[in-house]
Formats: sequence, structure tokens, C-alpha cells
Amino acid sequence: MINFTVGPVQSCEAVHEIGAQDVPYFRTAEFSEVMLENERLMLKFAGAPSGSRAVFITGSGTASMEAVVMNLLTPEDRALVVNGGSFGARFCKICEIHGVPHDEIRLEAGRKLREEDLTTEHTEYTEKECTAFIVNKHETSTGVHYDMELISRYCKEHGLLLIVDNISSFLCDEFNMAELGADVMITGSQKALACPPGVSIIILSPRALERVAVNDPKCMYFDLKDALANQTRGQTPFTPAVGTLLQINSRLKEIDAAGGVSVEVNRAKDLADYFRSRIKDLPLEIVSESLSNAVTPLHPTNGMSAYDIFLKLKDEHGIWICPNGGELKEKIFRVGHMGCLSFEDYDKLILSLKEVLA
Amino acid sequence: MINFTVGPVQSCEAVHEIGAQDVPYFRTAEFSEVMLENERLMLKFAGAPSGSRAVFITGSGTASMEAVVMNLLTPEDRALVVNGGSFGARFCKICEIHGVPHDEIRLEAGRKLREEDLTTEHTEYTEKECTAFIVNKHETSTGVHYDMELISRYCKEHGLLLIVDNISSFLCDEFNMAELGADVMITGSQKALACPPGVSIIILSPRALERVAVNDPKCMYFDLKDALANQTRGQTPFTPAVGTLLQINSRLKEIDAAGGVSVEVNRAKDLADYFRSRIKDLPLEIVSESLSNAVTPLHPTNGMSAYDIFLKLKDEHGIWICPNGGELKEKIFRVGHMGCLSFEDYDKLILSLKEVLA
Repeated sequence: MINFTVGPVQSCEAVHEIGAQDVPYFRTAEFSEVMLENERLMLKFAGAPSGSRAVFITGSGTASMEAVVMNLLTPEDRALVVNGGSFGARFCKICEIHGVPHDEIRLEAGRKLREEDLTTEHTEYTEKECTAFIVNKHETSTGVHYDMELISRYCKEHGLLLIVDNISSFLCDEFNMAELGADVMITGSQKALACPPGVSIIILSPRALERVAVNDPKCMYFDLKDALANQTRGQTPFTPAVGTLLQINSRLKEIDAAGGVSVEVNRAKDLADYFRSRIKDLPLEIVSESLSNAVTPLHPTNGMSAYDIFLKLKDEHGIWICPNGGELKEKIFRVGHMGCLSFEDYDKLILSLKEVLA
Repeated sequence: MINFTVGPVQSCEAVHEIGAQDVPYFRTAEFSEVMLENERLMLKFAGAPSGSRAVFITGSGTASMEAVVMNLLTPEDRALVVNGGSFGARFCKICEIHGVPHDEIRLEAGRKLREEDLTTEHTEYTEKECTAFIVNKHETSTGVHYDMELISRYCKEHGLLLIVDNISSFLCDEFNMAELGADVMITGSQKALACPPGVSIIILSPRALERVAVNDPKCMYFDLKDALANQTRGQTPFTPAVGTLLQINSRLKEIDAAGGVSVEVNRAKDLADYFRSRIKDLPLEIVSESLSNAVTPLHPTNGMSAYDIFLKLKDEHGIWICPNGGELKEKIFRVGHMGCLSFEDYDKLILSLKEVLA
């Protein structure tokens, strides 16, 4: 199978080699060194401001999304949440569960965030004394990549804490916490880090760390104070996904040695550009107003069901593309540009797409 | 390195082979089949009563311990918790965090649970109208294996919901939910299942499922209603540790084909008996009144620090035994009997122990 989904994605040989070995015991100085190096490289690659910290959560990206809301926000806050798809909706639901007052900026599927969404229609929000802004930088469900410059300016102007889910865009599109004034960045092991799923990562700015220090989340597993205290010595409060953390270490060092984030971003961009330039004659419409290099969201214009195309490629061509759920299931499928993929892989995909769409 | 810790442990070749491969896309009928088979085999191996269900949580064993308390108990309950070490203490702390009233049966390190702990000293507990009993069947921190027959009788007599953390004892010692009247069993991927860490498993009896159905935990990630609804079709609410779940599937089928739980239990027992019979002349004292086949907890009687023995074996002999934390750090180390280990491995350990202890 060739895997063009948005995660899990294909891994490189070094990651496979670690997966083929026994997982080592981890309450050791040796594993602590690995974890401290993981933190150092994650902070570097996120462009985190001086004094930031990173913690590694054994759980999906949603685990870290929820841990962030639980540890940084309280009923005294008011969050402004961009809701342009299922991951934006998920943040709203998490705020609701934890009693964090919030307003939504609702965007229909595929629509990008515009200046007027913040300045005109939603002026009322700031009047409600918002304290935080929450955004999935790349709304993975619909492939919309939000304008972080716009969001950054708005947050700086209004003094808002800026929480960024960068799960599917990290290492695919440029992102610099310090320049944007972002306080939190979340990502996961199974996107462009191209490791198995099971670990998510939270980066916290000094301002975010201050909030964590004074809050008291009602959860042992998601207590970031505990995670931070343990990570200071390169450990975790509970047995983590040790194997995946070693694979992440291998990947982070590989990226660093190859030239850092920009090389990875260019690789994703090259793959995305290549694919997008070669589907122009196919009955496929790109349905996002603002694309990430991570994913191309497509709507078949020949009347075919997007989900049927996914099934046909899987069952008859040995190819996974990424289906959508819910009301977009029949309308949209997505092609990812993350992980160990080559131009030749896309040539095969395009040949198969031509056949299926014919 | 040879790994005699209590997890992660050494895996078999089939598990390594899966780890060496790319993790497949999982929102497919193929992966759903794997997950439904995982559920079926876990229920079989736990001796779960008819109508039970299993869910797979991407997270450590503690994640599932907390999820169980959050989804099954409320401030209207009162739990009786056996606290004989750090994992018993953890359940008490989880109850405290979630406002679940609870009483502790405190047992000093190494001490087994006796009839009088339930009937004499603690009669007061039942007068407080307890509704649930929580026990780490094998208190892994000190290697004490509690008498489940005794606990089962007590729970049946008083109509208590019985929650059993079987994380380190599953597949090492006999356990049958239906016979014991247990309502919950928890285990993890990295103990006798001998897969990488990152997945924990919760089995719920029909009575436990009734409680889950009416409770409303304040957490998206640990919402077992959501996990159960998804598992009905072999899926999970969020991206799980797909690779580890495939490895678990391979191991469960391997165990099933080899004759089931009793074969695994006998294997652990043989390894434990072999090791214990061969250390009789060494200056080591077994410090548990009631041993599991999973672990042998040892105290050096020659004045050496237990932690120094761990370090020497690691740095000079290529062997991991399991150190203890906290106040037991210098006093106790543990030798595990889980995972892919042979009698020859124990011969090497004993030779090295002789040298280090001399």
C-alpha cells in the first residue's frame, strides 16, 4: 500500500529500525538524555521564545488539545475559537466540557479566515473581554490553512493568549512561535514527524507556563505541572510510549542534520506543488481557499462519491487516500503530502486516480 | 541488554516485525476487524462475563485507572481502596482529584491482605455504606499479590462494585472476572502482553457498563461512552496507537493458538520458580508475603544499596533489573518474569548478581 493519508503516514528507514527492536527500560539517565534532546529540538523547530518548555503526552492530538484547555484556561477566561471544521468544533466542545466560556468564529467548510471575520462581524467578541484565542492553524478536516499573521496581530492588539493546534501543519508550513507571539503549540507524532501515532507534544511559552503554574486541573493524567516537573529531568510521570519517543528523537536529529525545518517545509511544498500541478485536467476541484503544504482537499466534479473513490483506490489500486467523515464523507477526500513519499508515488496515484475517475 | 524490568519488556519476533513496518491507515474495515478481534480475545482471556465489553485507550495504565474512576464513580459513591504501595496510593489520589469519597486499607510494604483487614479493623468501612472496592491485584511497586478470592467474597457479601487493576498480573497469574464477580479489569500493552507501551485496556462487565451509560465524566479524551460507541464498529474516537494495537492483535492470536491464558501463566510461573530457586544462596531476601508470578521483589541483606545494584548491572553487565522509587529506592529492586525471556537469560542474571553482590 502507498499511504497518502494525513496520518499515520509512511516512516523512514531509521524509524522502522527502532520499531523492529525491543523497547528499552526508561527510568535511566540514557532515556532522560533522549527526552531532554527531544525537548531542545522541539523548542528549536517551533521557534519557541526563550524560557519555553515542551512536554510529551502519551495520547492522541486530542489528548493534548484537552490538556491545554484544562491547564491554561478556567471559567474566569473567555476564549475565541475559530471553528471551520471538525477540529475547530472539537476545541469548542472541549471548552464546553470544562466550563470555559467561549465564542466561535464559524467558517463554512473551505472558507479561509479574513480580516473582517475578526474586525467587523466579531467586534462583539472583544467587548466580552476575551482572554484567549484558540485556532487549529490547519483545519485538517477541510484542508484550510489559516492566516497566522492576521491572528497574531489581532492577539497582540487585544493581549490574548494564543493557543495554536499545529498538529498537521508542523514541519509542512512555516511557523515561529516567537515571531507570532504564540503561547502554545501542539503537534503529534504521526503527521510530518512521520512516526507511529501515540504521542502528542505541547510547547508552552513563559506566559503559558505561568498559567499552568497557578491552575489546578482536575485530572492526574493531564496535569501539566507534573509533566513539566518530570520533563525537567527528562522523565514522564507515567510509563510513556518509549518506543515512539525514541523514534521521534531519531527523526528530530535527522531533520536537524539535514538543515532544519525549512528543508522539511520545502519538501512538503515540492510534493504538494507537484501533485496539484498534475491534477489540473482531472475532474477534481480543490475546495480550500487557503492551502497548507500538508494536504490537498478535493471534491470530485464528475458526480462520483468521494468515499467510493477512497474505497476503489484502497481495494483495487493499493493506495490509501484520506476519506472525510460526517456530512463531507461523499463530497471531499484528501491527499496528504507528509511522510516518506516520492514524486514517483504521486505519479502512481495520479494514474490510479485517472482510472478511477474515468 | 537483557531486560528483566516490569515494563517495557522484551517482545517476540512477530511483534518486532510489525514494528519494522509502516503503520497502516486505520479508518478502514480491515482495521475495524483487528479491533473487534482484539476485543473478543481480551474478553476471553479475562474470563469476562457475558455482555462485557473492552475498550483500548491510547495512554499509560494510569490513564485507564483514571478513566475508570471518572466514568464509574461519582461523589455519591464511596470506594474502599487497598493501599499497599505506590499504585494503591495512586488510586486514592485519583479518587481525591475526582471527588469520590474513599477509605483506605493501608498495608505496609510487602504485607499481604488478610481476612482481618476486611472483617475486623475495617468493619467501620462498610458502615459508611461503601459502594465500590478498588484494588491493584498485584501491587507492582512492592510485588504483593492480593488474595482475590478473599476480596471477591467480601464484595459479593456487601454488594460492592469490584474494580481490579490487573496491569502487571494479567497473563502471569490466574484471573477470571466472571468467577470473581469483578466488574472492571485494567491492563496495559507493555507487561505480559509484551508489546511496546502506549496502550491500556479496560474491560467492563454489564454492571460496569450500566454505570458508564448514566455517568457524565468531565473529559472528552476519557469518555468511555464515546470509546464504547466507537469500539462497537471496531474504531476509536481519536487516532489511536495503531501500530501497538496491531502488535497486541498479533500477540493475542499467538497466545490463543498456543493454548490460551493458562499456558502463559505457566510460562511466567516456570521462569519465576526457576529464578527464585536459584537465588537461595545469595544475600537477597524476598520482601513480599504473597508473590505474583510476574515479579520477584528483593532486598539485599549484605548492606548494599538496591539502586547501586541496578546501576552496576546496567552499566557493567548489560542487564536491566527494575529499581524502585521513593523511600524504597535503596532497599528494594525487582526482577520481572514477563516478556520474551529464557532460563538462559536468568542464568546470566544470576551469574552477574553473584559478581555484583560479592
